[in-house]
Amino acid sequence: MIVRVLLFFVLSFTLVQGQSIVWTLVQPGVWKGTVGKPESYNLLTAAGATPNASALTRLGVADFPLPKPAIVAQLVDGKTYLRFPLDRTEQLYGFGLNFQTVHQRGRILNLHMDHFGGSDNGRTHAPTPFYVSSKGYGVFINSARYLTVYAGSAARKDSPDAPEAKDRNTDKSWTASPYSDAVEIVVPAAGVEFYVFGGPKPLDVVRRYNLFSGGGCLPPRWGLGFQQRVKSLNTADQVLAEAEEFEQKGFPLDVIGLEPGWQSKSYPGTFEWDKTRYPDPGGFLRVMKAKNIRTNLWINPYVAPSASIYNAIRPLTASHTVWSGVVPDFTLPEARRIFFGQLAKDGIEPGVSGYKIDEVDGYDSWLWPDVAIFPSGRPAEQMRQSYGLLMQRYSTDVYHQKNTRTYGLVRASNSGGASFPYVIYNDYYKHEDFITALITSSYCGVLWTPEVRASSTSEEWLRRFQTVVFSPLAMINAWASGTKPWSFSDVSKQVQDMALLRMQMMPYWYSEFAKYHFDGTPPFRAMSLEEGFLADVRTAVVNENLNDNPYALAIRREVKDQYMAGENLLVAPLFAGQKSRVVTLPKGNWYDFYTGELVGNGQQITATPGLDRIPVYVKDGGVVPMMPARLHAPKAGETVPIEVRYYGSKPGAYRLYDDDGETFNYERGQYSFREIRVTKNDRGIQGSISTAEPGKPNSVGAVTFVQMTK
Amino acid sequence: MIVRVLLFFVLSFTLVQGQSIVWTLVQPGVWKGTVGKPESYNLLTAAGATPNASALTRLGVADFPLPKPAIVAQLVDGKTYLRFPLDRTEQLYGFGLNFQTVHQRGRILNLHMDHFGGSDNGRTHAPTPFYVSSKGYGVFINSARYLTVYAGSAARKDSPDAPEAKDRNTDKSWTASPYSDAVEIVVPAAGVEFYVFGGPKPLDVVRRYNLFSGGGCLPPRWGLGFQQRVKSLNTADQVLAEAEEFEQKGFPLDVIGLEPGWQSKSYPGTFEWDKTRYPDPGGFLRVMKAKNIRTNLWINPYVAPSASIYNAIRPLTASHTVWSGVVPDFTLPEARRIFFGQLAKDGIEPGVSGYKIDEVDGYDSWLWPDVAIFPSGRPAEQMRQSYGLLMQRYSTDVYHQKNTRTYGLVRASNSGGASFPYVIYNDYYKHEDFITALITSSYCGVLWTPEVRASSTSEEWLRRFQTVVFSPLAMINAWASGTKPWSFSDVSKQVQDMALLRMQMMPYWYSEFAKYHFDGTPPFRAMSLEEGFLADVRTAVVNENLNDNPYALAIRREVKDQYMAGENLLVAPLFAGQKSRVVTLPKGNWYDFYTGELVGNGQQITATPGLDRIPVYVKDGGVVPMMPARLHAPKAGETVPIEVRYYGSKPGAYRLYDDDGETFNYERGQYSFREIRVTKNDRGIQGSISTAEPGKPNSVGAVTFVQMTK
Repeated sequence: MIVRVLLFFVLSFTLVQGQSIVWTLVQPGVWKGTVGKPESYNLLTAAGATPNASALTRLGVADFPLPKPAIVAQLVDGKTYLRFPLDRTEQLYGFGLNFQTVHQRGRILNLHMDHFGGSDNGRTHAPTPFYVSSKGYGVFINSARYLTVYAGSAARKDSPDAPEAKDRNTDKSWTASPYSDAVEIVVPAAGVEFYVFGGPKPLDVVRRYNLFSGGGCLPPRWGLGFQQRVKSLNTADQVLAEAEEFEQKGFPLDVIGLEPGWQSKSYPGTFEWDKTRYPDPGGFLRVMKAKNIRTNLWINPYVAPSASIYNAIRPLTASHTVWSGVVPDFTLPEARRIFFGQLAKDGIEPGVSGYKIDEVDGYDSWLWPDVAIFPSGRPAEQMRQSYGLLMQRYSTDVYHQKNTRTYGLVRASNSGGASFPYVIYNDYYKHEDFITALITSSYCGVLWTPEVRASSTSEEWLRRFQTVVFSPLAMINAWASGTKPWSFSDVSKQVQDMALLRMQMMPYWYSEFAKYHFDGTPPFRAMSLEEGFLADVRTAVVNENLNDNPYALAIRREVKDQYMAGENLLVAPLFAGQKSRVVTLPKGNWYDFYTGELVGNGQQITATPGLDRIPVYVKDGGVVPMMPARLHAPKAGETVPIEVRYYGSKPGAYRLYDDDGETFNYERGQYSFREIRVTKNDRGIQGSISTAEPGKPNSVGAVTFVQMTK
Repeated sequence: MIVRVLLFFVLSFTLVQGQSIVWTLVQPGVWKGTVGKPESYNLLTAAGATPNASALTRLGVADFPLPKPAIVAQLVDGKTYLRFPLDRTEQLYGFGLNFQTVHQRGRILNLHMDHFGGSDNGRTHAPTPFYVSSKGYGVFINSARYLTVYAGSAARKDSPDAPEAKDRNTDKSWTASPYSDAVEIVVPAAGVEFYVFGGPKPLDVVRRYNLFSGGGCLPPRWGLGFQQRVKSLNTADQVLAEAEEFEQKGFPLDVIGLEPGWQSKSYPGTFEWDKTRYPDPGGFLRVMKAKNIRTNLWINPYVAPSASIYNAIRPLTASHTVWSGVVPDFTLPEARRIFFGQLAKDGIEPGVSGYKIDEVDGYDSWLWPDVAIFPSGRPAEQMRQSYGLLMQRYSTDVYHQKNTRTYGLVRASNSGGASFPYVIYNDYYKHEDFITALITSSYCGVLWTPEVRASSTSEEWLRRFQTVVFSPLAMINAWASGTKPWSFSDVSKQVQDMALLRMQMMPYWYSEFAKYHFDGTPPFRAMSLEEGFLADVRTAVVNENLNDNPYALAIRREVKDQYMAGENLLVAPLFAGQKSRVVTLPKGNWYDFYTGELVGNGQQITATPGLDRIPVYVKDGGVVPMMPARLHAPKAGETVPIEVRYYGSKPGAYRLYDDDGETFNYERGQYSFREIRVTKNDRGIQGSISTAEPGKPNSVGAVTFVQMTK
């Protein structure tokens, strides 16, 4: 028997020995680890991601943030097992677009492209294999496989810091979830490459992650205006009438989105106009444009047998169909040429401003199955994880070739896609969870819209609308309901005011998106990325009845209902039914956005804003550049006056971004950051803005400075 | 470009060509298909399953039930893809212990050992890779991997019967889930063996499946009596006092279950008695036995550092711990010797009657992770899928060696485990879903108890208790609540009557379990396995509001709240709040169990039984053998009078099973089936029972016949 035991030891040793990791410094503060034979197709190759080397260089060097020997890789059972160390105090963020949780330590996630199904389990619209530690480093697994992540939930018996066994019979300190000293990840492939991002701050990690795939997207100015999506079977005349109505009622409108009915057939689609509803698409698009309104088209990428491109693309599609439409293999250049050629011909060339790319996430019941065969030979699993990236990448390419920016909607993205001008949306509709998604999107390199669709009360309508205004995409997605901003007449004035506020803030929003692009800083982001914010990591056993909670599970409390909007604003939405709410302020003085009054410093305050207002706070020295209220975004070449609002008393500085707002010329240097400075003394404030750079686009008219804090 | 397209065709052809399947007839009506190189460790080897060849031979030959060329296997991406054909009308049952659905066609399941998490998605306590078709055949994939199943949900573009593309814009017949002509399964291994079971009836398929792993379990007689589980920290004296209380109040009791507090430490455990609460375990067990009460012990298999077996077993355990306890690798003989040796020494030898094996299912947050390394080299995934089987198998072995039957509880089982004398339970507690699980257990080769724990009202308590009485295990699992059968005093008489009815019916229950063992017929089973029952397969769009139901999903309606209990009884429970319910009767006359009155024939009836009764119906010619009400099961060698109840007017026949009720001597022929026959004519009924076989155990005393239908 001893011989047998020894044999097991030897076998065990053989299995558990670590696989060597080859480390390379690939950018300042970014290290690549390579194990075994990584697969050639991964998230970065799918996205065609190219690091913004100069921005990464500006961010500077960093120390390797982890003890290298504690990063362990094993090749077992045809898979790669990765392990990264954790210390007892750190918190983890990221692992995809989550809707109900911000803190991820202790959780288990199966990162799998899917719609959000009601609980955060890794199945989501952006299952990004990337996490950020509160200690100021990040890890990204560059794999388009379904990954299983134990985010500090599994304990090893040979751990130098293993948890202590306790007796549940009598020891009140027993816990169902003992301490774990590691993140462990299953990559179902015999090798993988992964990246470690340095800090020192968590925000630096996120910046490096975003810049590593080229930096965040820069929408056109009109993309930051207001978008209304109309009922599916509307005709051209009905859409034009609806645009008129916005103008007449004085509601801002920059984009109208057409739903499936613009196509001659949908689910699956033809990608051709329905001539009964849109007899003259080109004329329709021109009239819309003349009204300063862009047109966005809904699609999903599944091709109907009656589509003109069907016969050509059919051999280049998967073995399985989606709603009886064929599924193009977009890793094949010829499939791209056929599909995006059709989008260019009937959509982009005649003037369509962008797309709403539906159903590239899942869910399983209508997407291709994992047994599908793609003609390129790429496994269905990899196609599933990256299909949203491919759609974004190659549609963006068409706009890029036309030197016209786009800003669209997509239901699926992944790591590597930060630079694509698309905002994620879905069919879920819980307001609170929409805000949590806005928070977690900042750990994923994606944008999320807490869109409004319908509401059961005026209060809910207004509360939802208020958060839409402080988000990457201000949209009513009324394809099913037909709701208009003024549909709830008792709050239509408040809705209008909020929509106009969105337009007034465009110089701020646009500058913040420019920082997303050039610096990697997410325009809407989690409080944990803000310096001076103390993450609330308490846990508590909420339900002590063992019949209902047999393992006496402790429930984690976390701040998941307030967020940062750009450099200077903290937004704390209220939800229907709430008359007041608690807001946790980071350290430093914070001021009311509307009144300029001091509200607190590093403390919890209670906000009772009334129905008309969404609580928004500005940091000390905060500067918010605004423009006059208007119904449409400024056009290229147009000049607008700027009102610089200044809060608190610390010296204020702000980089105001400017370019033509519509083309990709900024990629060739045709942009500027204008330096705004404000100081305060006993007599009042002193403001300045740097002069415009000669030869660069200049949209800045007269600049005035307003002292908000008296 | 044409060259490139051609190249893709060739590549595509290379990938999609079918892998040859080697077919073997392994038992009458059972065929094995082999693809690639199947793994050596699978569910059948884990369970040590041995077919009951003579019973399978008795069932007879069958035609191969499917067109063989339509069964397709492919090896792709290191995995095996399997495809089985479906025709347009068939329904599918099985794919594990499901709690909310009976019909599985159209669903997608990731078969993964886990607790039930609130929706049927493949993660469950018995994720059996087996399905039964309404057309009368079954398929079993003998793999201990996590399998992904597309149960008629994926459509191929080259299908000879592909669904038609429709235009959602205007065609009302558009559906989110087009017709699929196949079950497709991903087996994440480069080869697998699978089995096809013939019919012709679905019940024949289930019988073959159960007999293929040795037939269903045969509990001891006392296992069919009443079980009470007591509060965790009870002492020996408290347990004895509780047993006395049952006796004094006249409530049946055959088993008392001790919870974690019997052990000196738990979560993880020592598997040694706590000497402060149980100073003399052997004496305690003897006193209990003398009161005709068996003792069952809760365990989970994770070994505490303070356990006496810890040092010996530690090298034979996984890399990761569960609650800081080590996880034995039970595929290693030495690990089994140490662990089950301890159970034998402190438990089974002194007289413990069985175990409640907890937490071998999951959920993920406390089980070993998929990155765990087991010293045998078996992947953590395979260990996860089979750990419940291993625990059942090797604990049963100890009882087998002692020639004493056991009947225990377990939280995890899988295909191959039908013969293990364990009943599945969990922490979930929705009464309706507990009944659906009782139904679906019959497609899995497992037993399930809809145990009572606590209730918020007397009505709920009584309704739950009524269903427990018509289930494989009549149990109050009061480890947390301490509830007793008489705790709700206003219904305690009704509860007592139900408990005594359970005891009276013991000859029936015992015979039905014998048929599970010898014939493979599940004692509690789905209506679809009953001849003459028309499955209700209607679908309907329940919610037409596209904001709430954007894909206009049709909701399937299915009968999931009534079941067959043994050969002759149909049970239709009521749930708290219900005053009446609809019951769907199979074809043929059905009679009220309590009164013998005709209630209907192949129709839907409405039952309004009042609070005291659970609706139970008997088929025409149905025979139910009963015994006098008593508090404990008959002991080996004891003789009891039998009252044969007869219903309706058709000639009745029944096989009454008999053996010693306690040992495994039935495996050596020490059992008999006595033939009961009843006929009816104008003057009344004529009953007979075949004479006892000489030399066989005989517990049948005086036999009387009762004509229930007047």
